[in-house]
Amino acid sequence: MLNTLVVGASGYTGAELAAYLHRHPHTNLIGLMVSAQSVDADKCFSDLHPQYKGIIDLPLQPLTDVTDAAKGVDVVFLATAHEVSHDIVPAFLAAGCIVFDLSGAYRVQNTQIYQQYYGFKHKYIQWLEQAAYGLAEWQDEKVKQAQLIAVPGCYPTVSQLSLKPLLENGLLDTNHWPVINAISGVSGAGRKATMTNSFCEVSLQPYGIFTHRHQPEIEEHLGTRVIFTPHLGNFVRGILATITCKLKPGVTSGQINEAYQQAYKDKPLVRLYSKGVPALKSVVGLPFCDIGFVVQGDHLVIVGTEDNLLKGASAQAIQCMNIRFGFEETQALL
Amino acid sequence: MLNTLVVGASGYTGAELAAYLHRHPHTNLIGLMVSAQSVDADKCFSDLHPQYKGIIDLPLQPLTDVTDAAKGVDVVFLATAHEVSHDIVPAFLAAGCIVFDLSGAYRVQNTQIYQQYYGFKHKYIQWLEQAAYGLAEWQDEKVKQAQLIAVPGCYPTVSQLSLKPLLENGLLDTNHWPVINAISGVSGAGRKATMTNSFCEVSLQPYGIFTHRHQPEIEEHLGTRVIFTPHLGNFVRGILATITCKLKPGVTSGQINEAYQQAYKDKPLVRLYSKGVPALKSVVGLPFCDIGFVVQGDHLVIVGTEDNLLKGASAQAIQCMNIRFGFEETQALL
Amino acid sequence: MLNTLVVGASGYTGAELAAYLHRHPHTNLIGLMVSAQSVDADKCFSDLHPQYKGIIDLPLQPLTDVTDAAKGVDVVFLATAHEVSHDIVPAFLAAGCIVFDLSGAYRVQNTQIYQQYYGFKHKYIQWLEQAAYGLAEWQDEKVKQAQLIAVPGCYPTVSQLSLKPLLENGLLDTNHWPVINAISGVSGAGRKATMTNSFCEVSLQPYGIFTHRHQPEIEEHLGTRVIFTPHLGNFVRGILATITCKLKPGVTSGQINEAYQQAYKDKPLVRLYSKGVPALKSVVGLPFCDIGFVVQGDHLVIVGTEDNLLKGASAQAIQCMNIRFGFEETQALL
Amino acid sequence: MLNTLVVGASGYTGAELAAYLHRHPHTNLIGLMVSAQSVDADKCFSDLHPQYKGIIDLPLQPLTDVTDAAKGVDVVFLATAHEVSHDIVPAFLAAGCIVFDLSGAYRVQNTQIYQQYYGFKHKYIQWLEQAAYGLAEWQDEKVKQAQLIAVPGCYPTVSQLSLKPLLENGLLDTNHWPVINAISGVSGAGRKATMTNSFCEVSLQPYGIFTHRHQPEIEEHLGTRVIFTPHLGNFVRGILATITCKLKPGVTSGQINEAYQQAYKDKPLVRLYSKGVPALKSVVGLPFCDIGFVVQGDHLVIVGTEDNLLKGASAQAIQCMNIRFGFEETQALL
Repeated sequence: MLNTLVVGASGYTGAELAAYLHRHPHTNLIGLMVSAQSVDADKCFSDLHPQYKGIIDLPLQPLTDVTDAAKGVDVVFLATAHEVSHDIVPAFLAAGCIVFDLSGAYRVQNTQIYQQYYGFKHKYIQWLEQAAYGLAEWQDEKVKQAQLIAVPGCYPTVSQLSLKPLLENGLLDTNHWPVINAISGVSGAGRKATMTNSFCEVSLQPYGIFTHRHQPEIEEHLGTRVIFTPHLGNFVRGILATITCKLKPGVTSGQINEAYQQAYKDKPLVRLYSKGVPALKSVVGLPFCDIGFVVQGDHLVIVGTEDNLLKGASAQAIQCMNIRFGFEETQALL
Repeated sequence: MLNTLVVGASGYTGAELAAYLHRHPHTNLIGLMVSAQSVDADKCFSDLHPQYKGIIDLPLQPLTDVTDAAKGVDVVFLATAHEVSHDIVPAFLAAGCIVFDLSGAYRVQNTQIYQQYYGFKHKYIQWLEQAAYGLAEWQDEKVKQAQLIAVPGCYPTVSQLSLKPLLENGLLDTNHWPVINAISGVSGAGRKATMTNSFCEVSLQPYGIFTHRHQPEIEEHLGTRVIFTPHLGNFVRGILATITCKLKPGVTSGQINEAYQQAYKDKPLVRLYSKGVPALKSVVGLPFCDIGFVVQGDHLVIVGTEDNLLKGASAQAIQCMNIRFGFEETQALL
Repeated sequence: MLNTLVVGASGYTGAELAAYLHRHPHTNLIGLMVSAQSVDADKCFSDLHPQYKGIIDLPLQPLTDVTDAAKGVDVVFLATAHEVSHDIVPAFLAAGCIVFDLSGAYRVQNTQIYQQYYGFKHKYIQWLEQAAYGLAEWQDEKVKQAQLIAVPGCYPTVSQLSLKPLLENGLLDTNHWPVINAISGVSGAGRKATMTNSFCEVSLQPYGIFTHRHQPEIEEHLGTRVIFTPHLGNFVRGILATITCKLKPGVTSGQINEAYQQAYKDKPLVRLYSKGVPALKSVVGLPFCDIGFVVQGDHLVIVGTEDNLLKGASAQAIQCMNIRFGFEETQALL
Repeated sequence: MLNTLVVGASGYTGAELAAYLHRHPHTNLIGLMVSAQSVDADKCFSDLHPQYKGIIDLPLQPLTDVTDAAKGVDVVFLATAHEVSHDIVPAFLAAGCIVFDLSGAYRVQNTQIYQQYYGFKHKYIQWLEQAAYGLAEWQDEKVKQAQLIAVPGCYPTVSQLSLKPLLENGLLDTNHWPVINAISGVSGAGRKATMTNSFCEVSLQPYGIFTHRHQPEIEEHLGTRVIFTPHLGNFVRGILATITCKLKPGVTSGQINEAYQQAYKDKPLVRLYSKGVPALKSVVGLPFCDIGFVVQGDHLVIVGTEDNLLKGASAQAIQCMNIRFGFEETQALL
């Protein structure tokens, strides 16, 4: 049994992590934490997330000292802000914990990205270099040996799972940059009170055009340029990405299908559509990424969808833990 | 032409007032204001409310001095917090303005209510006594002569319009207190960033059970006790009230119908259902209160519905202005 | 291992049953069926309910002959129309199956109800008399011995769970009939294409005032009169009931609390709120009924909430199966 | 005063037409019609559309004979199915009416489109050739003289208004086909009971990829190829289109801005964003098309939004009528 700790359990991804760890047969959920300054410190987890009342009634302890917090902890999940993760990851690693970081702080190797897109200078380059990028279906081997796993962002997960098989097989004309239009539920913005998240203000709209931090994450890990336009949708959970690509001359629908099948035939959390494309509802509340596509001439439209809080965050973190420790890949997830 | 000013135009009811006054043939909208400390001070109205871009692009001026603000103003609408209205009403009156106050500060005569339900001691009893309560269909005469019109709350409007004809005609057994269950859209909580209003947190639920400040407002003006249970609904606009009453022995459906017809036959903003009951969608975006009812034995269920921002606030304020100045009652509203 | 069959698996409650039975450790889900005339006959279950793709890909077999269908089946769940259940229950019972019927066909003993509220004359009085009413927390003993379990309706479940402890303890003044205002998600109307269910038409509104078939079901099993007003809400899942009662003179909040605690202290699927009342979101997707209350003077407001498809239908059916066969009460549910 | 008739007034665009014509100072709304076979024939308009109760209570007359229906009618609006419009337009024209057809039956000149995308062979080529395509901001002159105005589709309106200024000025590299991703509210599917429109089934998803009939409409009128991917969104009204383009080398943001300004500076129903891009809520319930854009390098993302029922249908039809008869362009619309 692994002793596990969740930091950032007041938020939506933190809550999902707590629920998965609570029912995982090989883990003890020994604590839930929030930032020391959080208004939620010392509250009961299930007062914030009432669906867990009677199931997970642990207190949200303030994280004041990482070394103390890490005592007796085998595995820590960080559902914390980028800056917070950046700062506390090294101490958890130094204390011997295996760390699954759901923030963006250790996801990209190009350190200039942090200054430009995250607003801070990265101070832990050696840890950054050792971090495994936890895109589970593609990084098995690295994840198995890493002490620090940087769990991919929500948009990057669905974007990469949709494009990687085609790029690896050289099927796309990348002179035409793939156009990724993705729409996320409001939970992607985190659990907080802002005008943007306010019920009466939410309305379908693009944001962060050409400037979203997930664009360089996608590009670095795919090794190709893309045009990524995220949108806020008027729903709580889920992401649907519609990706438009140019095929290399002569590439057929069969080749595309073959590339997907080969990539994901043994991957239980990616579901391929043999015809048609998925709708958002097919994945909400579930740990899957669903993918379908349509070809016409040398144009291709791929549709990928996932629950932003699950395959786009917490379920993938648990999946990575399962891979890391040799548990069944879908343990606690299905 | 009346020169009109809206204070509190950053909010949803303030915005509706601005729109009505903009298109009213007998008013000039000469200014939009917000509290001096508002984060929205000096912003453009249509940056906050983008639907009015190109239509109403006035700045949101900070209200620093009431006497200055009142210069050249015939009529002022206050869509401000209760405490703010309480404080600034006297100065606007002293400056000679006709004041339509959409807050609760001048609605009830029992001054103890303010301490208990609003958290402040009322300091302007003489103005309170002179205020006309602007339940338009029932207070025509007082409204016509008043300098200060306290526009009723959203829940009290639909509740009173639904119950008053029956009480006036003595049809109800008031030993059984009418049970008012009402559900309001989130806009009723105002335009602000709170966890309660947060898109991912909003979920149908009752609140303020036995403690909501609209309960004493309803009771004072109806002259009877009620059990009022407000609910937050997962929609932006509108209120639907389901009211369960006990009839006096022998009262018939025909008598109830007659009471409603008599009360509202010449009232253009109350629509009666001769059969069936209204749904919320029948009034969203419109200045009406729709009312229907069903009788069985000596029990009666009344369903009243209105747009909380319109008949429950801004449309009723304009309706009162129309009555006050002898304009057509529905001018600018339909 | 029990061999289980779901009839009516094209619908929402049928789908939830299939999912529970699929993951139940003591059941084999051996078949999914729909009415012989259904447009969904021979389709794949996961084409209708895409969230189960790759998990439950069984065909929806047309039910042409009950005797054939019952072969090798230990337990059958009927998520069928009232008329259909009425007709096919006897044959499944004759074939030796244990039957959990989620329709209203065997829920009330007063046979006149069927003619008046369901539109058919009941032809199987002897089966009706032997049916156990599966309000799980209150009917343990009967359920354990019955061959036919009539699973309660969604509204009756939350209404009875909320009121029964108080009535059993004689705390209510029932001369004032309890007023039950309940709001249900659209899934309560079943999976079908109607204008009422149409996305653009759905809007908060009461329906079936004084005429809904759940009113006599509630009254028969509570043994008291109530005023029940159901509403359609603009959400997919869940029911929230706000119940207003008159207390007997002198009844205290403590007595009410005691009555609830005593009734449900060992009942894992009823969660009591020691302060405040639940919101709909606390139970959506979960098998619980959550209950809270507020007292003022001799008036009481109870708020009960449940997922209409789960504790209001499928989860309670599984709970009854668990009780019937001596499994852990929450097996497969949590 | 023009005598006007609306055919197809049971639907959502028909209802909007009725409302505009009711308040237009230069029109008499003399009748509302539906197909002879419609289940809504002889019902009251405001029973279907309760928001108009007391405002427009006309009966929905069955259209049995066009010549009879056309008597005394100056202008007819057809909010009917493509096939119906195809069949009845000639008779209304023969009767001397000015016809505004909101269907797709007379929008494209390439007659092969009808067979391939609409499923019928066009039989009235001479009328097709004389039809003016009512993209109001671009077709003023033709509209002024036409007897038949084919009002553009919802997606084509926002797509063309967004792209046309740039194409006319030769700013785009059209070897890279513009990628139009657009999301429409459910009302775009019309007022009818289908599983697709069912409240519990609606979920964000693309549909008609590479096969939607609006693709050839857009391409014919723009004179360029595009990749058009429509999506169904989980909201009632509005369309938001995100359009990704490749610029010709050296084209600047200033040139794009200039092109838009020049095209729309005198066009009251197109609103340009000088910075940022619009959200859906800015246009819901309003007759505008709002457009904004962002450039990076030689890539351009345009965001256009409109109410699908208004600028995407009924408001544009009224705008065309205003142009046709020399009324103020926004009469009845603002």
